[in-house]
Amino acid sequence: MQQNRPSLYTCLSPALLHLYDISNSIVVIIDVLRATSTIATALHHEAKEIIPVDSVPECIRIGKQMEAITAGERDGKVAEGLQYGNSPFEYPASFIAGKTLVLTTTNGTKLLHMALNNGAHEVITGAFANLSAVCEHLIQQNKPVLLACAAWKDRVNIEDSLFAGAVIHQIKHHFSVDCDASAIAELMYTQAQADLFTFMKQNNASHYKRLSAFGLEKDIQHCLTPDTAPVVPIYHEGKLIKSALR
Amino acid sequence: MQQNRPSLYTCLSPALLHLYDISNSIVVIIDVLRATSTIATALHHEAKEIIPVDSVPECIRIGKQMEAITAGERDGKVAEGLQYGNSPFEYPASFIAGKTLVLTTTNGTKLLHMALNNGAHEVITGAFANLSAVCEHLIQQNKPVLLACAAWKDRVNIEDSLFAGAVIHQIKHHFSVDCDASAIAELMYTQAQADLFTFMKQNNASHYKRLSAFGLEKDIQHCLTPDTAPVVPIYHEGKLIKSALR
Repeated sequence: MQQNRPSLYTCLSPALLHLYDISNSIVVIIDVLRATSTIATALHHEAKEIIPVDSVPECIRIGKQMEAITAGERDGKVAEGLQYGNSPFEYPASFIAGKTLVLTTTNGTKLLHMALNNGAHEVITGAFANLSAVCEHLIQQNKPVLLACAAWKDRVNIEDSLFAGAVIHQIKHHFSVDCDASAIAELMYTQAQADLFTFMKQNNASHYKRLSAFGLEKDIQHCLTPDTAPVVPIYHEGKLIKSALR
Repeated sequence: MQQNRPSLYTCLSPALLHLYDISNSIVVIIDVLRATSTIATALHHEAKEIIPVDSVPECIRIGKQMEAITAGERDGKVAEGLQYGNSPFEYPASFIAGKTLVLTTTNGTKLLHMALNNGAHEVITGAFANLSAVCEHLIQQNKPVLLACAAWKDRVNIEDSLFAGAVIHQIKHHFSVDCDASAIAELMYTQAQADLFTFMKQNNASHYKRLSAFGLEKDIQHCLTPDTAPVVPIYHEGKLIKSALR
């Protein structure tokens, strides 16, 4: 039985992605603060689609071409030339339903494109906002999984590792998990799960400090709350859309 | 006061080394199972010097040239053409005192040479065998520190991260530790410290499985025991020697 389970690996930084053969895998892009939290929220609120792009100029160009909403931040502020920021609170259903969002982020978008270039079988995005939905999807698909943390400029971070740990904690009995990075992520999650926000604060997480310095503690709280946006964002022809499988 | 403390970072894989400016730093090479444990043990037992080399042919060549002992393993066995293996138990004082050891290892030597090529100010090696000696040295030197895990073929591993965590746990109040990888390592160590061996076993550490399959549980136990070889191996002109500062 055990040997028939698909594999599950955790990649703690985009700079380690090349170590994994993902040609037959579902890659889960994880950028908890805040790209993949915002992606889940916007799609849950019936955004038509989200186009992830690498740069601000590309975001402006595609936004104009498609008459779409443009969003992205640099150094904690809406980037020059764009309309909105990275906070999930900016995308209530009353605003985003039916619309196309062109989104640029520092770490998550880069990793998503790397996974595509490395030939991933399927790319989805995950965050606490859609934790259970992602877990159900992975169990249903029954394919090898790579949990891919966006990290911060290639440096391992706590919050993305915590989310990987949360997924492993929920689904490990359906997979063959044989990887120290997965063990480390799950260990950290089991220590943190009673209060993720306090855990981030007490361990002086670099991203906690970065965002709280911008007055974004409310965003952090929200991004660490499970299952507020139960959708599976799946990449298809240049766009993230809600998976039709649910 | 706090802003005058030197920085301390943790690099969980050689593939992340380029993210750190180490030109003014002491880099601690960590390869607990078993290269840096064996290096500390051999120097504590009065080996004259240890020459770390990248490959088996290079090990044979330098061994002949210097009439030195050659050592190294591939796939858990003494590599063809070499005389001894990677176990600290192979290097009692009765055997190694006064001799030169030419050592090739899979992960540790590669990382050591990377640190030198990246311009490290000083390179030392660390393992539980010389935990307190390394900590005292780092406090005394009062320079920026990078704890550099050798990992396994660039994949993050538990035992090297645990050692980084142990160092951080002992010396963090002397440094400015502002790095998620350090927080993750220390968290793991505080969970594991009561019984490192059981922790490795229970978390199914990949290297635990690899070595125990070769019947090397005794080596693992020994390599996880603190302060059996209280020396600071320091790299100087192609050789690891005992630091004269202690």
